[in-house]
Amino acid sequence: GIRSALNKTTKPSMLNVHLVPHTHDDVGWLKTVDQYFYGGRNYIQHAGVQYILDSVVAELQKDPARRFIYVETAFFFRWWSQQSRSTRNIVTQLVQEGCLEFVNGGWCMSDEASTHYSSVIDQMTLGLRFLNDTFGECGRPRVAWHIDPFGHAREHASIFAQMGYDGFFFGRLDYQDKDRRMKTKEMEMVWRASASLNPPTADLFTGVLPNGYNPPPGFCWDQSCSDDPVQDDPALEDYNVDDLVSRFISISKAQAALYKTNHIVMTMGSDFQYENANPWYKNMDKLIHYVNAQQANGSQVNVLYSTPSCYLQELNLANQTWPLKSDDFFPYADGPHDFWTGYFTSRPALKRYERLSNSLLQTCNQLEVLGGPKSRSGPFGKGDSDTMKRAMAVAQHHDAVSGTEKQHVADDYAKRLAEGWAHCQVLVSNSLSVLSGSEVPRVFCENLNISVCPLTEGSKMFSMNVYNPLARPVSWSVHLPVNGTSYNVTDSSGNVVDSQRPRVPSAPTLSGRASALRRPSPAAPPLCADLHAASPLCFQYLKVTFDPNTGLLSGLTNLETQQSVQLTQNFYWYNASVGNAESSQTSGAYIFRPNSSTPCAVSKNSNTVLCVCQNSVVQEVRQQFSPWVSQVVRLYEGSRELELEWTVGPVPVEDGFGKEVITRFDSNISSAGYFYSDSNGREVLERRKDYRPTWDLTQTEPIAGNYYPINSRAFIKDGKAQLTVVTERSQGVSSIYNGSLEIMLHRRLLRDDYRGVGEPLSEPGEFGNGLVVRGRLLLTLTPPETAADSHRPLAQGLVLQPLLSFQEGAPKPTSKLEFSALQAALPPAVHLLTLSQWDSESVLLRLEHQYESGESKAFSQPVTLNLQVHTHTHSAVTALLPCCLLYRLSLLCFDCSFFS
Amino acid sequence: GIRSALNKTTKPSMLNVHLVPHTHDDVGWLKTVDQYFYGGRNYIQHAGVQYILDSVVAELQKDPARRFIYVETAFFFRWWSQQSRSTRNIVTQLVQEGCLEFVNGGWCMSDEASTHYSSVIDQMTLGLRFLNDTFGECGRPRVAWHIDPFGHAREHASIFAQMGYDGFFFGRLDYQDKDRRMKTKEMEMVWRASASLNPPTADLFTGVLPNGYNPPPGFCWDQSCSDDPVQDDPALEDYNVDDLVSRFISISKAQAALYKTNHIVMTMGSDFQYENANPWYKNMDKLIHYVNAQQANGSQVNVLYSTPSCYLQELNLANQTWPLKSDDFFPYADGPHDFWTGYFTSRPALKRYERLSNSLLQTCNQLEVLGGPKSRSGPFGKGDSDTMKRAMAVAQHHDAVSGTEKQHVADDYAKRLAEGWAHCQVLVSNSLSVLSGSEVPRVFCENLNISVCPLTEGSKMFSMNVYNPLARPVSWSVHLPVNGTSYNVTDSSGNVVDSQRPRVPSAPTLSGRASALRRPSPAAPPLCADLHAASPLCFQYLKVTFDPNTGLLSGLTNLETQQSVQLTQNFYWYNASVGNAESSQTSGAYIFRPNSSTPCAVSKNSNTVLCVCQNSVVQEVRQQFSPWVSQVVRLYEGSRELELEWTVGPVPVEDGFGKEVITRFDSNISSAGYFYSDSNGREVLERRKDYRPTWDLTQTEPIAGNYYPINSRAFIKDGKAQLTVVTERSQGVSSIYNGSLEIMLHRRLLRDDYRGVGEPLSEPGEFGNGLVVRGRLLLTLTPPETAADSHRPLAQGLVLQPLLSFQEGAPKPTSKLEFSALQAALPPAVHLLTLSQWDSESVLLRLEHQYESGESKAFSQPVTLNLQVHTHTHSAVTALLPCCLLYRLSLLCFDCSFFS
Repeated sequence: GIRSALNKTTKPSMLNVHLVPHTHDDVGWLKTVDQYFYGGRNYIQHAGVQYILDSVVAELQKDPARRFIYVETAFFFRWWSQQSRSTRNIVTQLVQEGCLEFVNGGWCMSDEASTHYSSVIDQMTLGLRFLNDTFGECGRPRVAWHIDPFGHAREHASIFAQMGYDGFFFGRLDYQDKDRRMKTKEMEMVWRASASLNPPTADLFTGVLPNGYNPPPGFCWDQSCSDDPVQDDPALEDYNVDDLVSRFISISKAQAALYKTNHIVMTMGSDFQYENANPWYKNMDKLIHYVNAQQANGSQVNVLYSTPSCYLQELNLANQTWPLKSDDFFPYADGPHDFWTGYFTSRPALKRYERLSNSLLQTCNQLEVLGGPKSRSGPFGKGDSDTMKRAMAVAQHHDAVSGTEKQHVADDYAKRLAEGWAHCQVLVSNSLSVLSGSEVPRVFCENLNISVCPLTEGSKMFSMNVYNPLARPVSWSVHLPVNGTSYNVTDSSGNVVDSQRPRVPSAPTLSGRASALRRPSPAAPPLCADLHAASPLCFQYLKVTFDPNTGLLSGLTNLETQQSVQLTQNFYWYNASVGNAESSQTSGAYIFRPNSSTPCAVSKNSNTVLCVCQNSVVQEVRQQFSPWVSQVVRLYEGSRELELEWTVGPVPVEDGFGKEVITRFDSNISSAGYFYSDSNGREVLERRKDYRPTWDLTQTEPIAGNYYPINSRAFIKDGKAQLTVVTERSQGVSSIYNGSLEIMLHRRLLRDDYRGVGEPLSEPGEFGNGLVVRGRLLLTLTPPETAADSHRPLAQGLVLQPLLSFQEGAPKPTSKLEFSALQAALPPAVHLLTLSQWDSESVLLRLEHQYESGESKAFSQPVTLNLQVHTHTHSAVTALLPCCLLYRLSLLCFDCSFFS
Repeated sequence: GIRSALNKTTKPSMLNVHLVPHTHDDVGWLKTVDQYFYGGRNYIQHAGVQYILDSVVAELQKDPARRFIYVETAFFFRWWSQQSRSTRNIVTQLVQEGCLEFVNGGWCMSDEASTHYSSVIDQMTLGLRFLNDTFGECGRPRVAWHIDPFGHAREHASIFAQMGYDGFFFGRLDYQDKDRRMKTKEMEMVWRASASLNPPTADLFTGVLPNGYNPPPGFCWDQSCSDDPVQDDPALEDYNVDDLVSRFISISKAQAALYKTNHIVMTMGSDFQYENANPWYKNMDKLIHYVNAQQANGSQVNVLYSTPSCYLQELNLANQTWPLKSDDFFPYADGPHDFWTGYFTSRPALKRYERLSNSLLQTCNQLEVLGGPKSRSGPFGKGDSDTMKRAMAVAQHHDAVSGTEKQHVADDYAKRLAEGWAHCQVLVSNSLSVLSGSEVPRVFCENLNISVCPLTEGSKMFSMNVYNPLARPVSWSVHLPVNGTSYNVTDSSGNVVDSQRPRVPSAPTLSGRASALRRPSPAAPPLCADLHAASPLCFQYLKVTFDPNTGLLSGLTNLETQQSVQLTQNFYWYNASVGNAESSQTSGAYIFRPNSSTPCAVSKNSNTVLCVCQNSVVQEVRQQFSPWVSQVVRLYEGSRELELEWTVGPVPVEDGFGKEVITRFDSNISSAGYFYSDSNGREVLERRKDYRPTWDLTQTEPIAGNYYPINSRAFIKDGKAQLTVVTERSQGVSSIYNGSLEIMLHRRLLRDDYRGVGEPLSEPGEFGNGLVVRGRLLLTLTPPETAADSHRPLAQGLVLQPLLSFQEGAPKPTSKLEFSALQAALPPAVHLLTLSQWDSESVLLRLEHQYESGESKAFSQPVTLNLQVHTHTHSAVTALLPCCLLYRLSLLCFDCSFFS
């Protein structure tokens, strides 16, 4: 009723101005998500979401013509839980009448550069499910709304299209791109967001908002603004109705000239606005009244309260043809020297912790299903996956994993993830006790990355369980700190394993396996020698050479395909700009701006090598580039990839220079300015130096303007060879020289970059002198045609890594030491994205085809799957969800009727 | 019902904490009153009263236990006029239920130092009448509430007591006074506010609020504050209920230790707060809930929503004896070097314009009554007195006539007064046309103070009407600019008047009189000669001598009483402090702080005289002290007072020194540190250098700490002689030396004084180089016993001065050239304070006894008045008001039954 009544207020022959009242509520940024909700620490930033929702609900009741959209379900959920039944009834009615409309509707408005699609889908699910459970169909968002993220990923658009959104609106895009689009009326378009899915499966109407997400200048009536209100008492000195009306009409006409139809949208709101909604609505009511009153004098401008979906409905009626967009909106620049490409790497430890937490969450979800109800309440107490689900959902926010929040807020995100994991640990322990029959307490040794695990270090005998959350076997190396020098290792069958093999053999799918380690006697120390006397690293699949003079990597040979490349790798730092004559822009949490295009080498002398260690299963070269940069180059027996474990930090800044640390690979591959990076860890996009597919680029920042986000992989190639780097966190990547690929690993800066965070990005670390970050890059050299066959499983193996747990002593004889939820591994092309308890009756299963169209001869093929073949009958794997909730690349088909 | 329900929530055995939600809405300060109402120019200060009232009304509806008090009727009236009937009904109900309570209730919260009682009564009447008309008895404020004015006048307390208020609360008093009162539990007292009225007529319970008018530290939940909200989700990182409750209880107990009963009040609000009332009430609801919940654990603290009148009711029940206070609360200091004594003089031109406007308004009011309905709509169009009433009421605000507002706001006050006068001019013209029968247009020559009047300057023949608003005859000198050198002057009877007599002879009471001036022939120029060759000024009553060497006043003789004093007068300036080692406090709009106790003489050489002019009716000495200070010493034939017309400005500041200009009289009167100043132009208080009647003063500012406000007069005396200065505006006064009296005339400063106005007090004037101010002091020398016989009528004559109007040409023969509304002058002791149209049926008449008890043998006596004797039968003077609206000093009695 109301919604159609509103639509009647558009006038087909006039310019219709859709006022969209909205608030943009960051799920953490300058304050924590809790502080934002309650309005704590307002001395940092005045913002209290509880009051926003209180106030908007009160104002919407005053006039059925009023509209409001709400976006972040993380906040709405929390607010809803504190409301009385009568308020809930009022809100439900407002939603049903279309006065309060949810848009986007995820738990947060996710970052698009540094998020992985798996977690994006999870966070959208969390938000949308709440809305669906609470309001049913009326609560369903029709429009995706990413007004603030700093660049837009094609994969996000693809996900939104597949989720059934009718359109997508955002605020930020490159200023050159925007200029062109305004001139050519291409502010609105159809985004064809997948190269694999058949159109229109991933087609999404996409609109660029005219003023970012702010109101037009002079029309902000929030308590945080200082624009004059409508002063409509003619006796007043400051009477301003005539002036306001004429300015508004003139702004409307100017805006309409940039768009194709006689409908335009004005975002009436901004960050944490509407804490006091009355000034906004009171003045908008008057504005609408006085502007529309001019129609009696011949004005052709018609203003109305509206929502993005109502606006979109009008655009649909206009029956326009929209331009097509098939690349993405990275990188984002809001000025010639203002490229928002620093945050691709900002806070690398948080980025890794977020990614690791996703792996933990998926394991937790799976074990909740596999362990049944006892996993939530069992011998180790009450556990849950909800805490981690929410922590992960919050971490997807565009000022969370992006690294663009204040330090205390970054600490809060990490703490939430840690709490999530603590809750999951109980669940996992309960579940494994159900599955194994052993109630011996488990420890999880979360500090193995720095070789700390009190249990393994202090125990003469312990057992280790490995849970593999992938739906196929993986090989995974395990490094354990122990005090003894030699251990006997037995597998789940009690057979002795070579104690020199620190790698657990191929693990079954969705499965756990226990091994026992017993310390029998001292053994030999690791073999380390000066590299100058050492051979290259070499096992059956890969050979790695080093320059004996510099100690740097010098070549890589794939022994299977017999292809070699010259390949050097080194570490450098860009000197962060502090502003210069061209621009005052500094490097900061958001912005990357080196003060020179030539980075400094980290190593001041040319000899970087400490030692080389090897045994029958692993060969390592340990490189020390400086007191604060080192690397272990590691090749496992049986591996097709080279592992580079880098350690960077504390980045010294005593010289007064902010540093942006990269590693750069320089090869003889003829990449000719092209390189490739993934979008949210899924499809891969082609990049080209100093080039944008959709406009004629004027390149003004030769380094920062060529950086792109990677979430899981990047590569360069020529006709013969492809050098692929697979990463375990989101980072920034570029290829500045022919044959080179550089990845930014860490950043420590001394200036804020004037985008609001108000702090230099200088993570203090444990000792306050700068954060040390450790990470891994996996390197493959393959023919281009078969590269995906390696990097797809390699990347998924990093995303969902085995979970280790430890128990003191030997397993009890009654324990079940090995189990698998699957009867057989899924086909190579099929990835188990989600297995999670939905409610007490059902679980959520998401499968996806993990190969892009055309990237693999072997696997870019349709797959048909019979779930019954793969699942144990005893497992609870029965999915309830409609097909639309099964997110997929193009080539996976299955029988929906299977799910009952 | 609700009010008694609330009272039930106090607990007799506990400490009851009365939370008083309130907003303090300045009727102009950093922004104009319009800007404050609408929320315009929020970049200056975030404040919009329309939203405050919107929001509070909405929040009060949510819980009948909630309370709010509202103070400034200027804002409430305007808001009310914009409300729908349904909102008005809701508000009426909230008022009836005691949820919304009006306190104070005047149009504004008046300044106490620089206001005249006549205008204070008017502005209170305007506000209270609106509340009474709108809400009846329920809308009647019970409590006076002056939380912000910078010092408190005894006359204000007296007025409040006579108006029937039950009590008075304020926030600001001298810090030494407050310290002592806290120690002795004398924060609450009975103020005996008149030395003339028999107790308890002017007794008023008076309470000093504990935190000025702010909430206790940490408990401000306005949008303008940053205190943490009640974060009561125990799962939160920032959960703070336990901390808040214990802090609140501890603050409450500490506060209770300063007061006598088990009830304390906490002001929950501040400047322009409650624009978004929800955060306030939501958190106070929780605070009350959680603090009172501790009663179950033995806490003896009980919190409740309350109002000042409810609090006062509890105090009355406590049956306490309160200490007595009989002086006033001037001067106010909030630190050893922070005396708020500058604003007594700040913006002297605005202070004069406000005072003059009062005279114009009283004339306008009287002529509205005398001219009947045609005065409001007559031959010259529509006129009204309401515009001037409101402008004058607004100008009483404690940042208006006080001179402590920003420059643009001062300009706005002046503009409002000018508009008020423009509306009155039409009314006066209409009324005079009714009374005179002449519809010839009138002009009012408002610039006679600078000798500008186009009509008199350009006309060969014109007539002048003089309206005297006093209820007795006065002599009044008229100076007109003319182009000719000689004029014939005829009176209303057509008799020729001596053209050398520029003084209109004794005018009848409440009366108009026309005279005609015709230019016949050139006459002699004024006689001016060098003073060194001139005699002293001398007419029959007074002789004035000058020092032939310095040109300064040297002596004054009352020829009637044959008493002489040595008397010099000179002009000086204090060098405004810019802060020093002792304190960073500067001189500014509020604060007076000279950097030395010795002021600089304005005149750099000793010869200050220009010339002396005299004729048969006036003798003048024209003194030039510097390019920016001059004075005319003027003695009229037949006058008992000496007129000193000073002109100061533009005050030069190119030397980098802010200047506070005084004139100082030094006499051989043995004043012994005592001097006297009036309170709001009514009763006179004794002052004593470096002394306060109620506490043992530590004097830390030997000059500024001895300044007091005068509104109409100050004097020094000894056993024989009293030297009285009558002023025509409010100023600061002191007596630093034996026999001296100094008056601050003008101030021009280069620094802000950190009290919020954010501007140096440097009025630009017409040419931007500094404001020129002209004013008059009237000086009398009398025996102390008869001083009041002179200064009382002299002061009233300056307050209500004759209104001149001019018509081109000769009066028509049919015109009535003279009229009087009174059959006879009122007795000398009786002052006609108000004669004003109340509604179409009735008028408001206020008479007062204008002598204090004991100050005059002749006139400090009871007077009985029969109004019928004094009023013409044809006049509309019939009063309707109950006796309580007739404000009076002690000795006027009249028969109330006379008013029907």
